[in-house]
Amino acid sequence: MKTIHETADMFGAAFPWGKDPTETGLLRLALTDMDKGARDWFAKEVKSLGCEYKVDELGNQFAIYPGKDMSAIPTGVGSHLDSQPTAGRYDGPLGVLSGLEILRTLKESNYVPNYPIALINWTNEEGARFPYPLLGSSVYAGIKPKEDMYSIKAIDGSHPTVLEELERIGYKGDTECAFEANPVACHFEIHIEQAPYLERGNKKIGVVTGVQSYCWEEITVTGKSSHTETTPLDDRADPMLAAAKMIAKSREIALKYDGLVSTGLIEASPRSFNVLPETVKFSLDTRNYDDAKLDAMLVELKEEFAKIAEECIGKDSKIPITIDYNHLMTSRRAYFHEDCKDCIRDASHEVVGEEYTMDLVARACHDSKAMSTIVPTAMVFIPCRDGLSHNPREFSTPEQCEDGFKVLMGAVLRYDQL
Amino acid sequence: MKTIHETADMFGAAFPWGKDPTETGLLRLALTDMDKGARDWFAKEVKSLGCEYKVDELGNQFAIYPGKDMSAIPTGVGSHLDSQPTAGRYDGPLGVLSGLEILRTLKESNYVPNYPIALINWTNEEGARFPYPLLGSSVYAGIKPKEDMYSIKAIDGSHPTVLEELERIGYKGDTECAFEANPVACHFEIHIEQAPYLERGNKKIGVVTGVQSYCWEEITVTGKSSHTETTPLDDRADPMLAAAKMIAKSREIALKYDGLVSTGLIEASPRSFNVLPETVKFSLDTRNYDDAKLDAMLVELKEEFAKIAEECIGKDSKIPITIDYNHLMTSRRAYFHEDCKDCIRDASHEVVGEEYTMDLVARACHDSKAMSTIVPTAMVFIPCRDGLSHNPREFSTPEQCEDGFKVLMGAVLRYDQL
Ligand SMILES: NC(=O)NCCC(=O)O
Ligand SMILES: NC(=O)NCCC(=O)O
Repeated sequence: MKTIHETADMFGAAFPWGKDPTETGLLRLALTDMDKGARDWFAKEVKSLGCEYKVDELGNQFAIYPGKDMSAIPTGVGSHLDSQPTAGRYDGPLGVLSGLEILRTLKESNYVPNYPIALINWTNEEGARFPYPLLGSSVYAGIKPKEDMYSIKAIDGSHPTVLEELERIGYKGDTECAFEANPVACHFEIHIEQAPYLERGNKKIGVVTGVQSYCWEEITVTGKSSHTETTPLDDRADPMLAAAKMIAKSREIALKYDGLVSTGLIEASPRSFNVLPETVKFSLDTRNYDDAKLDAMLVELKEEFAKIAEECIGKDSKIPITIDYNHLMTSRRAYFHEDCKDCIRDASHEVVGEEYTMDLVARACHDSKAMSTIVPTAMVFIPCRDGLSHNPREFSTPEQCEDGFKVLMGAVLRYDQL
Repeated sequence: MKTIHETADMFGAAFPWGKDPTETGLLRLALTDMDKGARDWFAKEVKSLGCEYKVDELGNQFAIYPGKDMSAIPTGVGSHLDSQPTAGRYDGPLGVLSGLEILRTLKESNYVPNYPIALINWTNEEGARFPYPLLGSSVYAGIKPKEDMYSIKAIDGSHPTVLEELERIGYKGDTECAFEANPVACHFEIHIEQAPYLERGNKKIGVVTGVQSYCWEEITVTGKSSHTETTPLDDRADPMLAAAKMIAKSREIALKYDGLVSTGLIEASPRSFNVLPETVKFSLDTRNYDDAKLDAMLVELKEEFAKIAEECIGKDSKIPITIDYNHLMTSRRAYFHEDCKDCIRDASHEVVGEEYTMDLVARACHDSKAMSTIVPTAMVFIPCRDGLSHNPREFSTPEQCEDGFKVLMGAVLRYDQL
């Protein structure tokens, strides 16, 4: 807990919500100066523990803690130190810093694992500054080519690319970013649940059995820019009205398929009080536990959006309303590995007891999703207050964090035994 | 026409839409360097015609062309040289440059009017860069205090204020910005219609009898920022969904009251693909020909918005959705002056004939609205293609512009006789 709060205080503490100095959120967007600060601190810390330290071409940081068999492929533990623009202190850092606490504990106890342990800080997990989540782990796992990810532009400032920002903060490393070149044997990760099911079920540990499927699209609705006050309703081809109806409709479709559809970003152009925009661009984040249902949702969303566009063209408008879809990513339903889940479940039964342990499917994505496509993977979830995340008030108690840490460490050492 | 196109080419030509070099729009936001260029050009031009030249504290430019009785209060003719971000070449410049053409014509013909003629370029008519339209004429007419307008912030860049930008471009003049200190006797203005009624009625000249009423509000919907993918629908307090439903609903209310409701600006914060925003802010421009109906629309909009906010709070959310209204302005239904309308109508009957002349009410606002609260005022409208305005493709033919110019000049000289 001390490390979580000290690093938050040093690198990005923001948005106080309580009286205690630890009661703030975090602003540490990927590859900003704040992120560099946290990375530099991480490098120093793991070196002081005697780890071998490498940075790969995507800025992923690897700290290899020695085991008895130094030639063996290490057991992987990872998460991310980057944050959302108005984040809490736990999403990401809890994972990396719990991994660090394992290495510290091994060192203090003079316990040498059979195999080395690789602690990893993955780049741009959030997809907040660069809108492709799990960016570093996706290249590592061979899901996306390096070049595609290098060219992704930040949503802020002068929109620098991933490559430009990696170079600027000195984190374009020499190690090839590829599982084959720099392998780990498995991937464990601890994370706050970010949803209320553990808390509401009065559980202490979630054994994460997989990740729901999702799709990210950027939708551009184009109509006719014209005067807000003089253009008769029948003459309009108003992309703002159309986008508003689409966002409203997307909620109905989410309900129908028991999924989620959400819009975080929206932008109108041109920007003027008395101009109906020419284009309105908005993000659509579509989720389902079921791949087939996700696909069906997307089909229905597009059908309904096409209808809405048609309906919003005024009968006297000579200009239509068109829709462009920019598909950013689809991530399919993932199922985690039996061995890893067993190690977590066993450890949880020991630490908090079976009655406080619950299987669940992750709703958000995590670097473990990318890793699960190449190595045995599973995750530990702990409850967080009101299930709230991506918000400065995100909070887990010290006891919840400690339980999670013990389960993660128990799982890693069990896997080391396996 | 030559002056319209030459000044557009020099100061802000943008967004080409046709093959001819004149077939572009205009980007000349108020108090930018482009606006300064057009202002400097205007000053030089009117001085070369022998005008007395003054700039007032709000940057309004006055050019006083001499009449026989130099001590008399001048006949006013004005409009604006600023533009929307993706404007056409006619909205505003047509008015100022037609006024200039009157002065040139008088000079060339050695015609000395009975009274001086004041040609005025009003500051920030558009309300695009600084979201208060008719900014310069409103202070002049005593509708708004100078200090309130000085502190309005630009929607671009580092959001400089009106005062900062006036000082930066050197257009905070010495003349007091007040009718009492620097009076005109009346106000004539020519403008493109910005709506399709003249064109569809096969008319050439509109005698503008008044301006419809309108209200500008900035609406901030505040909910709970949280994760787009993990927050169950029942746990959400999603201001994006609420804002979308409000914008969709506002169209229904516009239809019901035979008015207009439009949204040009929208902004979500924080900005991230996978964060439901905490706040969504959008503009609402509400219009009606009838003051009472405008008021009724606003009451119903606020009632419906309150219901939507309530409905969008998930049953498990501990955080509500709230709405803040920032009222920017209300402009009441205006009725123009009989004498001015008669001068325009007479001139129009002479120039294009009675069958091509039509009375109509302006839908957008104009500096003439502010002026009509203090002096006899009326406007000349000419048709524009498809009624399109606030769009680079805005277009009136040279013949339409010439008809309008002749009617404006005829009206001004008739008023001079009166
Ligand atoms: N856990 C988390 O918030 N990850 C960000 C990627 C995603 O949006 O699924
Ligand atoms: N004519 C015109 O577009 N004026 C801008 C002010 C308004 O939006 O009514």
